Amino acid sequence: MKPVAEIFSQGEELVCGQIVDSNAAWLSRQLVEMGFRISRHTAVGDNLADLTNLFREIAQRCDCCICTGGLGPTVDDLTAEAVSLASGLALQPDAEAMRQIEQYFTRLDRPMPDANRKQAYLPAGAQRIDNPLGTAPGFALRFQRCRFVFLPGVPMEMRAMFDAPVRADLQRRFTLRADTLITLRSIGVGESAIQQALADWPLPAAVQLGFRVTADEVQTKLLFPAGFPEAERRDCVERVAALIGNYVFAIDDPQRQPGDLVAVIAEAMRHRRLDLAVMETASHGLIAAKCLDQPWLLSVDIRMDKSWQTGMAADSAQDIARALAAQLADDKASSLALVQLYHPLASDADDRQDAIVLYNALYTPQGVFGSRHCVAGAQTRKQNQAALLALDLLRRYLQDKCP
Amino acid sequence: MKPVAEIFSQGEELVCGQIVDSNAAWLSRQLVEMGFRISRHTAVGDNLADLTNLFREIAQRCDCCICTGGLGPTVDDLTAEAVSLASGLALQPDAEAMRQIEQYFTRLDRPMPDANRKQAYLPAGAQRIDNPLGTAPGFALRFQRCRFVFLPGVPMEMRAMFDAPVRADLQRRFTLRADTLITLRSIGVGESAIQQALADWPLPAAVQLGFRVTADEVQTKLLFPAGFPEAERRDCVERVAALIGNYVFAIDDPQRQPGDLVAVIAEAMRHRRLDLAVMETASHGLIAAKCLDQPWLLSVDIRMDKSWQTGMAADSAQDIARALAAQLADDKASSLALVQLYHPLASDADDRQDAIVLYNALYTPQGVFGSRHCVAGAQTRKQNQAALLALDLLRRYLQDKCP
Repeated sequence: MKPVAEIFSQGEELVCGQIVDSNAAWLSRQLVEMGFRISRHTAVGDNLADLTNLFREIAQRCDCCICTGGLGPTVDDLTAEAVSLASGLALQPDAEAMRQIEQYFTRLDRPMPDANRKQAYLPAGAQRIDNPLGTAPGFALRFQRCRFVFLPGVPMEMRAMFDAPVRADLQRRFTLRADTLITLRSIGVGESAIQQALADWPLPAAVQLGFRVTADEVQTKLLFPAGFPEAERRDCVERVAALIGNYVFAIDDPQRQPGDLVAVIAEAMRHRRLDLAVMETASHGLIAAKCLDQPWLLSVDIRMDKSWQTGMAADSAQDIARALAAQLADDKASSLALVQLYHPLASDADDRQDAIVLYNALYTPQGVFGSRHCVAGAQTRKQNQAALLALDLLRRYLQDKCP
Repeated sequence: MKPVAEIFSQGEELVCGQIVDSNAAWLSRQLVEMGFRISRHTAVGDNLADLTNLFREIAQRCDCCICTGGLGPTVDDLTAEAVSLASGLALQPDAEAMRQIEQYFTRLDRPMPDANRKQAYLPAGAQRIDNPLGTAPGFALRFQRCRFVFLPGVPMEMRAMFDAPVRADLQRRFTLRADTLITLRSIGVGESAIQQALADWPLPAAVQLGFRVTADEVQTKLLFPAGFPEAERRDCVERVAALIGNYVFAIDDPQRQPGDLVAVIAEAMRHRRLDLAVMETASHGLIAAKCLDQPWLLSVDIRMDKSWQTGMAADSAQDIARALAAQLADDKASSLALVQLYHPLASDADDRQDAIVLYNALYTPQGVFGSRHCVAGAQTRKQNQAALLALDLLRRYLQDKCP
């Protein structure tokens, strides 16, 4: 039997619908992968009686509960107080937490507001969980049947704290037999196209197939039950990857997560000592922004005006992009050069939702490679896809054509 | 007293985190605007006992509950069955629902699968809610204290059904008086600093103060109860805005939402027919990316190397930025020019979490303005803050110093 876990979220902005509870979904995925069964999500506002009652209920009905939010410095941050009321454990100042909060403000060269002092008070006997990114420390304690873990609601802080001490601590405390999740991460292909590609080959019955679509990629998820033979699993993953094809830029398993598209590219660029010059149009700075702190990125030119579109016929756009890429590599003395052009699909496109056609060209010592894509949707979606699809041409070269 | 409402979501894919529950947030916003108080969100998987128990609990503790999901044709769609078990009301075939489901398949020219027959069975005495977009009809009934409304989980169907008959029905059944929410949106100041700034001036007791922190801004929320005098409300908002100070870039009320920082800047730039050249460093393309499709943005240079940092002492950085801004305006013949420089706060900073100091300079016809900020945290946070704080210097000029 798997241990039963719940996710609990606190915040008026959650129950009032001002923000969507993405923390609950993220935490659930982590716990499912670790081997928990998730029975419930609950979100309540900043109401001390509601919070206290809920902690009492949860303490009796499940083995583990991850709670987010309500650890901030303000008067509507009530988590520690509610835990103290529900459990009868008094709040006590934690000297190390106080030191870290003070240090946070010292590093910023700012005086510490009095309100932040409250964040260092934890229920007696609770284990502090350090927050490397913010002022709110988390804490964990057992109360009746349930191991409670309290984390801040800021997603970046919450994830960093879960990834570092919390995950390992839960693995020590619970007997978990995790299923094995394999994630094939792809760019440039839709969920339904992948589904169709996989339709002819039946997966083993024990394997659960799922999909997840984010702004940056489509993930095909294969969940293998604990005890599934490893060799058979490898075969199955290889088969699925081949059916999806070259859209797959990375395959995550519990041992290895190569990271996102830029991380995959960065690894190959470093390894082969290559460098890159970029000219971007439709992505409007987003290629540069995604490649923050990448030493192999020599230069990025953002073309603001659309003068290069004038007279660019659809059948010559690819040639123009190729010529510009060769020119760019020459100008910047870079080993690789990536150029992105685009034009509206309809000749009189005024609607910002209208589709655009992207033409990418990559100059390399092995010749110039090109790609063409049609992208539709909101402006920010097209901008993001434009950045990713240009970078994906580079990824395909590095993985398939670069010696 | 406001009637108390809850949101309830059913689905294994929700509790396992494969999808984020955006229905709950959307429904909450509708109900809050109508004048309900939302006390809780709950999501559970496809488990008959869990569902039945939850319906019993909810029936006793709130006045209204909107439920989504679990109305489909498959074996794991258990909502009607659980409602019947919890309430003791037998499931009965609804002739009109059956006719509509049959018609749905006739229109698609497909045979109706037997499984869909189940969707026409509703608890005795429930009011059917027609689904114009899919096969699953919804239904509503009163059970103990609570008015339950059951809607499908497909967001498009759910929203259409809520907007058409459900909203009006709830407005008939409940005595609702909506509050007025005012949101002061700020950049460059923390939540706790705002709280401290407001500490000396007590808000009217009826006004509820809240905060929301996103990656891009801090929102200070003032909730005025229905019937609060309008002139007093305007005074209160003005007072709070003055206490927070020039960090506030926009104030949202039910009539007017000026939009995000770039939208506020764009409005002023258009109005005054100004244009802008940018040089960015720490934000690495993100200023350009945020200003997609802004015709007043003439050019953006992204400096990749850090050569300009060499020999740049902290006390000269501001002067260098100012000189570069004047130079940039001259080079590009722009009316405004924005330059961003930075250096690590610690002289030997290798840690990517370490704080950086940003120096922004804005060349304008009224002189050169500067700002200095210290930013810490993950690389992507520093990058985003760098872009926003540079743009915010421009916003301050446009709002305060531009004739």
